[in-house]
Amino acid sequence: MQLEPVDPELPISIRDEDAVSDDVPNARKIKNKTAKRLAKLTTLQAKLYGDGRYAVLVVLQGRDASGKDGTIRTVFGACNPQGCDVTSFKVPTPLERRHDFLWRVHNVVPPRGMIGIFNRSHYEDVLAARVHGIVGKPIWMSRYDQINDFERMLIQNNVIVLKFFLHVSRAEQRRRLLKRVEEEDKNWKFREGDLDDRRLWDDYTDAYHDMLRRTSTKEAPWYLVPSDDNKVRNYFITGIMVRALRKLKLRYPNADPNVLLRAEQILTV
Amino acid sequence: MQLEPVDPELPISIRDEDAVSDDVPNARKIKNKTAKRLAKLTTLQAKLYGDGRYAVLVVLQGRDASGKDGTIRTVFGACNPQGCDVTSFKVPTPLERRHDFLWRVHNVVPPRGMIGIFNRSHYEDVLAARVHGIVGKPIWMSRYDQINDFERMLIQNNVIVLKFFLHVSRAEQRRRLLKRVEEEDKNWKFREGDLDDRRLWDDYTDAYHDMLRRTSTKEAPWYLVPSDDNKVRNYFITGIMVRALRKLKLRYPNADPNVLLRAEQILTV
Repeated sequence: MQLEPVDPELPISIRDEDAVSDDVPNARKIKNKTAKRLAKLTTLQAKLYGDGRYAVLVVLQGRDASGKDGTIRTVFGACNPQGCDVTSFKVPTPLERRHDFLWRVHNVVPPRGMIGIFNRSHYEDVLAARVHGIVGKPIWMSRYDQINDFERMLIQNNVIVLKFFLHVSRAEQRRRLLKRVEEEDKNWKFREGDLDDRRLWDDYTDAYHDMLRRTSTKEAPWYLVPSDDNKVRNYFITGIMVRALRKLKLRYPNADPNVLLRAEQILTV
Repeated sequence: MQLEPVDPELPISIRDEDAVSDDVPNARKIKNKTAKRLAKLTTLQAKLYGDGRYAVLVVLQGRDASGKDGTIRTVFGACNPQGCDVTSFKVPTPLERRHDFLWRVHNVVPPRGMIGIFNRSHYEDVLAARVHGIVGKPIWMSRYDQINDFERMLIQNNVIVLKFFLHVSRAEQRRRLLKRVEEEDKNWKFREGDLDDRRLWDDYTDAYHDMLRRTSTKEAPWYLVPSDDNKVRNYFITGIMVRALRKLKLRYPNADPNVLLRAEQILTV
């Protein structure tokens, strides 16, 4: 009941049915398990910060209303704000457009000790940029390798890269968007172009498919997270986070015994 | 039972006895009240983000082990990580030293919609820099006005500035530092120079005193928070945060009715 990374050698399925998982425990178990994992995440994140050898980069991608913001609030809300940075990537600024597409991304890669969360990311440059025809095929095709190379460099420099594609079905997205229209606390977020991407559903599905197939690597895997149910989504993501952090065998650095001895002497006077 | 801002016209008392408050409810009431305030803080922060008219800058100052990190974890842990940025100011880098002391600070002032938390701040430039003689008196004396002018500019540009001086007694600091020496999860944080500031206790008290007197303004007040008891500290800080955010009369922006209508039409087809 752990979500396995996307294996680019196997067929990748992004149908509506795949937005629901049939391999999860019952609701009560999910709730308990997620709560436990969140508590572990809090502990592990404190250790990551103290350890200082690794950074963790979390990439969140998914269609509108797939739960990126909710994931940040509910999963990464468990982290100490001091050890966790969120970057939301918007339409590139004029200055950003004058740079290669990885420039603004590199600038906000988390330093060691930190968890950095990307709400959207450099993957928009093979998603929105492709689907909306902002760049031609030779350009976006060349970006998959560029991304893989870039991420490999990060990994070789102690950045753990975890990529989550939050997959919602068309029906669930409609339900959520309609709810968003109706709720005063949320409907101000709606913008003119917000539904354009829904009309381009199949084009995006193709782009997601190629993204998963071409950039899910052993070192920086993609996880295709069934996200029609928020609780299931959190259950899977917390599980992957805890597993990945545990693998690092984090430990607090050893204190300098001389420093401690002197401190004790001074303080006990 | 609300903590009032430091009034520079009145005498300011930073004695050991002032690190404990005698004007607080019992422990159970403090716990309940703080929990309620934390929940309100979560709601208000979401509104601040949506509203987008104001930024909130929280400055945390205090001696070693006064609870700055704990405040960030327990109070600002209630915020959505997406709406909250923490900056820890360390010893200035060579590049930072080639700039005026406010340069690196200005760079990380929170944008509107965000809460920015400074773990230490530009105030170190009238504290550590003064006590350790890094700059001479004419320099640090001139900085109070420079800080007030800078903060006034921020305020006039919709940045709410809230400054907390976490006040611990000498005895409580010793207790906490000794505990830190003993706990393996914490003692790696100890560094050679960490106790130097304790030896300079009275010099720091003078520097804190002048800081409070010269930079607690009506617009950007300092709060002297009795911090020997973490729960009391959180009780006060959450109270001030909630009060300050409420004053802003935050509201979610109005949605464009035409956009909503079209969205509804498209989605209900």
